[in-house]
Amino acid sequence: MDTDEFRRHGHEIVDWLADYFRDIESRAIVPAVAPGELRRALPIAAPVSGESFDVILQDFRDQIVPGITHWGHPGWFAYFRSNASPPSVLAEFLTAGLGAQCMSWATSPAATELEQVVMHWYRQLLGLPEAFTGVIQDTASTASLMAFLTARERLGEDAARMTAYWSGEAHSSIPKAARLAGIASERCRIIPVDADFAMRPEALAAAMSDDVARGLVPGMVVATVGTTSSTACDPLRALGSAAHAHGAWYHIDAAWGGSAAILPELRPLFDGVELADSFVTNPHKWMMTNFDCTAYFVRDVEALQRTFSVTPEYLRTRHDADVVNYRDWGIPLGRRFRALKLWFVLRSYGVAGLQAMIRSHIAFGQELAGWVDATPEWERLAPAPLALVCLRHVPTALAGDEPALAAHNAALLERVNASGQVFLTHTMLQGKYAIRVAIGAWRTERRNVQAVWALLRESASR
Amino acid sequence: MDTDEFRRHGHEIVDWLADYFRDIESRAIVPAVAPGELRRALPIAAPVSGESFDVILQDFRDQIVPGITHWGHPGWFAYFRSNASPPSVLAEFLTAGLGAQCMSWATSPAATELEQVVMHWYRQLLGLPEAFTGVIQDTASTASLMAFLTARERLGEDAARMTAYWSGEAHSSIPKAARLAGIASERCRIIPVDADFAMRPEALAAAMSDDVARGLVPGMVVATVGTTSSTACDPLRALGSAAHAHGAWYHIDAAWGGSAAILPELRPLFDGVELADSFVTNPHKWMMTNFDCTAYFVRDVEALQRTFSVTPEYLRTRHDADVVNYRDWGIPLGRRFRALKLWFVLRSYGVAGLQAMIRSHIAFGQELAGWVDATPEWERLAPAPLALVCLRHVPTALAGDEPALAAHNAALLERVNASGQVFLTHTMLQGKYAIRVAIGAWRTERRNVQAVWALLRESASR
Repeated sequence: MDTDEFRRHGHEIVDWLADYFRDIESRAIVPAVAPGELRRALPIAAPVSGESFDVILQDFRDQIVPGITHWGHPGWFAYFRSNASPPSVLAEFLTAGLGAQCMSWATSPAATELEQVVMHWYRQLLGLPEAFTGVIQDTASTASLMAFLTARERLGEDAARMTAYWSGEAHSSIPKAARLAGIASERCRIIPVDADFAMRPEALAAAMSDDVARGLVPGMVVATVGTTSSTACDPLRALGSAAHAHGAWYHIDAAWGGSAAILPELRPLFDGVELADSFVTNPHKWMMTNFDCTAYFVRDVEALQRTFSVTPEYLRTRHDADVVNYRDWGIPLGRRFRALKLWFVLRSYGVAGLQAMIRSHIAFGQELAGWVDATPEWERLAPAPLALVCLRHVPTALAGDEPALAAHNAALLERVNASGQVFLTHTMLQGKYAIRVAIGAWRTERRNVQAVWALLRESASR
Repeated sequence: MDTDEFRRHGHEIVDWLADYFRDIESRAIVPAVAPGELRRALPIAAPVSGESFDVILQDFRDQIVPGITHWGHPGWFAYFRSNASPPSVLAEFLTAGLGAQCMSWATSPAATELEQVVMHWYRQLLGLPEAFTGVIQDTASTASLMAFLTARERLGEDAARMTAYWSGEAHSSIPKAARLAGIASERCRIIPVDADFAMRPEALAAAMSDDVARGLVPGMVVATVGTTSSTACDPLRALGSAAHAHGAWYHIDAAWGGSAAILPELRPLFDGVELADSFVTNPHKWMMTNFDCTAYFVRDVEALQRTFSVTPEYLRTRHDADVVNYRDWGIPLGRRFRALKLWFVLRSYGVAGLQAMIRSHIAFGQELAGWVDATPEWERLAPAPLALVCLRHVPTALAGDEPALAAHNAALLERVNASGQVFLTHTMLQGKYAIRVAIGAWRTERRNVQAVWALLRESASR
């Protein structure tokens, strides 16, 4: 593909994407495809000769797009949304076009320095103390694994006796990180939660004391702001005090909830955040930045570098003493220029614009919670401190019959999703099947929230 | 940014990138910026109000681009090149625009199935046995870490006595992976290499036998096809036999060199590849696909899944029994739709087009090696089986004085890079400072190789 062809097809793709964004609501969010359908339709080997890009783009439209789940749809209430705002998409395009490697300062000075700048901006935005330094990673899963690895390395010989603590509401990436860091499951403790699904500090303290008494070494405590099931917020200050009393690393997983820290009125949820040794939040979730873009903050940069730095001769540059080389700040050597999209987003929307977006989602969530609370036969299964509402339908005839309620609500969820207009997922809360309505798509308006509530009630009455 | 603005700015960026590609040779590859220059020029906090995208794009052009190292320049001979071909850049743009999460089949069916298809195509292209299954990761660093973690998990209780083996020429990501996997440095063995920088199988076998005699458990052997310093190729069959004789996992790091496997005439370098338990190669290096795109192949998919699978309720879908959920095939939960760019690349160029590109680079490399060998006062420091030539200038007056030769060649390298027309990096080979000329940029033509050789000789005569 020469430059002229790139120009022609590039313009074609811009128009296709703009039309896609404009008309996205006319698409069913979840595609009506069966497992194996696309695989069977495609050739079993790569072509010998190059094909025309017109044909390839046509196949993209005809074969790939009909099998895509449309994450950009304003009726998206599933999981936590990953937001691909237009400025971030354009930045990703530039990043791909430049193709710069951001492993060392010398391999792309502007990329490294822009990452330092936007991580500094982002730290301020979240109200994190000056003692924290940020670095961009791909996902919160990776960042949490990094926290575990750093905590483990810090312990040296004691690592073989290291214990770790989190609640049963912590994200699955936490037990996964512990396993990958080599912390045997018999040294991992699931701390009980209270009625609001938040970790109980006194239970944490007791578990750590027990372990110390048995000759073990508390090495890691993970708290969550905004759990995946119900956006429960663990009490950061009390947990952090307990962690530090036993010398454990204190990691805060605010993958989704962290974005709420840009609202002054929600800062109380982050009270005690300054006790953290590491803090992770995903701009690619609730902050308009397309996946992947995770902000990982640490207090002790040297501990991070001791864990992740390996410098062979062929990577040395004459600037090493004066610059940041981000290859020493994570697992992969190669790194994309991800700071660019966060810079585009922060400047395009401004702090006030981002606050307004988050505020509107929270207001929608509160309104929906109110509707659920006020409606007979509907039940809210958890507090809704942010923009996620966990609910279920409880027909009088099924009240108290948990298996029947689970089946009833699972069927209800399937019917609602089959409309193609909205997409919801589920979870389990204290043994109860809960439908999650997670508001957080930047295109979502009040009418979309009204629509999902109407669809739920309508489907329940069928 | 609304849809119309996205359209307008998108077209603007397409034209900017097309011009950038067209005129890239007029830019100095390495920017003339000092550490801290950009940081000091940018505001210290994010703006409160959103800014016009015209201003942001102008700042991108005026502030960021002048600090970028131009990885797309045809005079690029540094490190190993990461190639961002036009079709892959367009695919990345579409991937960003769709914003689909590829963690589960259900979260984007076409993305999962296209990944299965292109990994199947790619396996065939490389001549890997049918027993191998591929999955896309971000980098070879991550994939090699995954290999270590899988090997460690497979050992169960014996993991605490696990030993690992690689040569001193292995990539830095290998000792890093071992460290992150918790394999203490006293259980890692650096196996000697022969005069061609390839690992010595008899030394490997002896080291493993010694360890077994000491009650340790050989758990991992890493071989390399195309080492970073000199593209040495370890003898895969002999090393694999030794690894399997002791029950060790056998990982092959072909991050750059793996692309050579698409040439039938170079398959002998891969003799014994079928003994591998895991094999990694980067389409984002020498196969026209923009970073990041690593192809990780394993023989035992179940061992992979046992290591990386954690499925909480909120991630369960009704298709789980019938489909591949790639979240269970790696560290991160979230995943971009990276298969799309590999599909665009394989179809745009076709197997024959990709083979022609690799062949031309190897021919350039052989020709340069010949020029070096035929020129007095120039020395080649390693075999050049692929497209990397390691060389140095040895003025008669300095012959035998290693520190003086290192200083002389380092200065020579700086002068050549200062031209802005080419970019080279260095390494150390058996204590000798070597200038690396790594050919592998898709825009590189014979005239660029002639130019780098002319610049080197000219600079040496100054």
